[in-house]
Amino acid sequence: VPATPSLLTPVILSGGAGTRLWPLSRASRPKQFLPLAGERTLFAQTVARPQGIANSGPPIIVGNATHAALIAAEAGDDAQIILEPCARNTAPAIALAALLAAPNALLLVMPSDHVIADILAFHTAIQRARLLAEAGWLVTFGIEPDGPETGYGYIALGETVGDGVQAVTHFVEKPDVGRAREMLAQGNHVWNAGIFLFSAQSYLDALAQHQPAMLVAAQAAMAGAVHDGNQITPDATAFATAPSDSIDYAVMERASKVACTPVNMGWSDVGSWDSLHAIADKDAANNSVSASSLLIESQGCLVRSDKLRITLVGVDDLIVVASGDDVLILPRGKAQDVRKAVAARGPE
Amino acid sequence: VPATPSLLTPVILSGGAGTRLWPLSRASRPKQFLPLAGERTLFAQTVARPQGIANSGPPIIVGNATHAALIAAEAGDDAQIILEPCARNTAPAIALAALLAAPNALLLVMPSDHVIADILAFHTAIQRARLLAEAGWLVTFGIEPDGPETGYGYIALGETVGDGVQAVTHFVEKPDVGRAREMLAQGNHVWNAGIFLFSAQSYLDALAQHQPAMLVAAQAAMAGAVHDGNQITPDATAFATAPSDSIDYAVMERASKVACTPVNMGWSDVGSWDSLHAIADKDAANNSVSASSLLIESQGCLVRSDKLRITLVGVDDLIVVASGDDVLILPRGKAQDVRKAVAARGPE
Repeated sequence: VPATPSLLTPVILSGGAGTRLWPLSRASRPKQFLPLAGERTLFAQTVARPQGIANSGPPIIVGNATHAALIAAEAGDDAQIILEPCARNTAPAIALAALLAAPNALLLVMPSDHVIADILAFHTAIQRARLLAEAGWLVTFGIEPDGPETGYGYIALGETVGDGVQAVTHFVEKPDVGRAREMLAQGNHVWNAGIFLFSAQSYLDALAQHQPAMLVAAQAAMAGAVHDGNQITPDATAFATAPSDSIDYAVMERASKVACTPVNMGWSDVGSWDSLHAIADKDAANNSVSASSLLIESQGCLVRSDKLRITLVGVDDLIVVASGDDVLILPRGKAQDVRKAVAARGPE
Repeated sequence: VPATPSLLTPVILSGGAGTRLWPLSRASRPKQFLPLAGERTLFAQTVARPQGIANSGPPIIVGNATHAALIAAEAGDDAQIILEPCARNTAPAIALAALLAAPNALLLVMPSDHVIADILAFHTAIQRARLLAEAGWLVTFGIEPDGPETGYGYIALGETVGDGVQAVTHFVEKPDVGRAREMLAQGNHVWNAGIFLFSAQSYLDALAQHQPAMLVAAQAAMAGAVHDGNQITPDATAFATAPSDSIDYAVMERASKVACTPVNMGWSDVGSWDSLHAIADKDAANNSVSASSLLIESQGCLVRSDKLRITLVGVDDLIVVASGDDVLILPRGKAQDVRKAVAARGPE
């Protein structure tokens, strides 16, 4: 462990183009660029989140080239922005950032479309993880589960390897509800939130060992990158040769020194209108409504509208989202069926 | 009975300013001016409805002065349009028309906001009623009930006084469901649709006998009327002195020679979103949807939208109406609760 802590470099992943919050989120403006929880976008909240962490530097943002303007508007002047010429999932994206960063920099990898309500708890967990990361561990942040959620991967925790940090026994892919209940009852299992801390060198070393082709592709892509101000566009042909894989599958499940810091920090991936209802401020009737909406004798509803006046009378547990010329209506608890609407209407 | 039939003059009542179909119908554009069932407005359909009746002339329209432009746009060039300076209910409105028409004209009084699907049945009923009306009877058209409806007044039928025409025993105000069931089981009761046929003179005679103050007010209003092309504006001060009352209460329940022609003609007063769903064309899933709306795994819904794309997923028995900047959502079967929305949002 070095005497002085290494520089912490946030790596913000903005590759998502999901439409699970359609019609508000669209392919041209995915959910990280929407003010879904609070007045700032999830992206802007993610950029601001490392503020106050000791010895932390400006972020590296890895995002989709088609969202360059949206990213630049909120990245901050000191950010470095890597614009992926194509999407190759998270492992190659993080490889690009690791190659750009100083080798001994600690990379705090964060998706740009999550909510973390308790930033102090997050910072405390980072401090705990930092010592391990500086010692060469690949550290994940595990969310303490509050239910048998089937939409997340799980992390099985093993022996304690530091203050508030445990070795990872194994990763569990999204389980069925029976398996999820087992893990919840058993304890020592946390949700995989896709947030990581490790040194650039540790990650590159792990790639060299487990994903040599991916590393070679990323190195070639960065060697041929075009730099334009703070925007870096990796070579498209080279990057396209990288295997498309997530950091979980490609690296974390294979590497040896993998640890996890469990943390309870009001986390949500805002993965659906149902989860937005869960985390949103609600009135006494369990409704979360945007301005200009009016609910009469209605309960358990989520209403989001950017300009229309929505009026509900005598309706329970309904999701109503108006954006542009689209109005989506579906029952709460069925938010995953948004995909059926997107399939029919198109992602824009 | 005269040898040659008198001229039949349609009298179209457009006084309604209801908002039971809010947000599509608004105080500034009540439902008669909306294309709710078919491509033409209910008003335009009413104007066209007498076409083909033997010896019928151009209509007299009695409507609200604030809707003058809407009326003029669809009244036809040969119509006479009486613009009421204030609303005094149907009995005084019809008095104005009766004073404008030739005394021996037969007035076919029709609300402008109803649907009649089977025009041939209506015309046949008119031919039956005509002989009685020419003999001085006040004839109503009674709708054969198909259920214990509590939203309409009922007419109790007595002895036969002509081919397909029966004397009216008495009128029944909107009943409770028990009373409605009784009448349905008993038979010889029909719904009061507010459609009438009588000579102008017979109506004026009945007013002279039962509503002399109303007749005097209407006469003074027409004596002081301002004529502007085909538009006639009765004197406001005089008309305001007319008692405000419906033809049913003021005249029909009091007069002696009152008859009814029962008719089954696909009638609806389109009194609510529920009744519009009932009469609308529906798909195999019992949905009635306007263009650009999309229903996925949804049943029994009514969707009306003039410009927005409404998408429903997994929703049953819902009414969704988008108009202007307003979207109303409420359960089918609860359409009367629209009034709660209008009370909160205002009638515009």
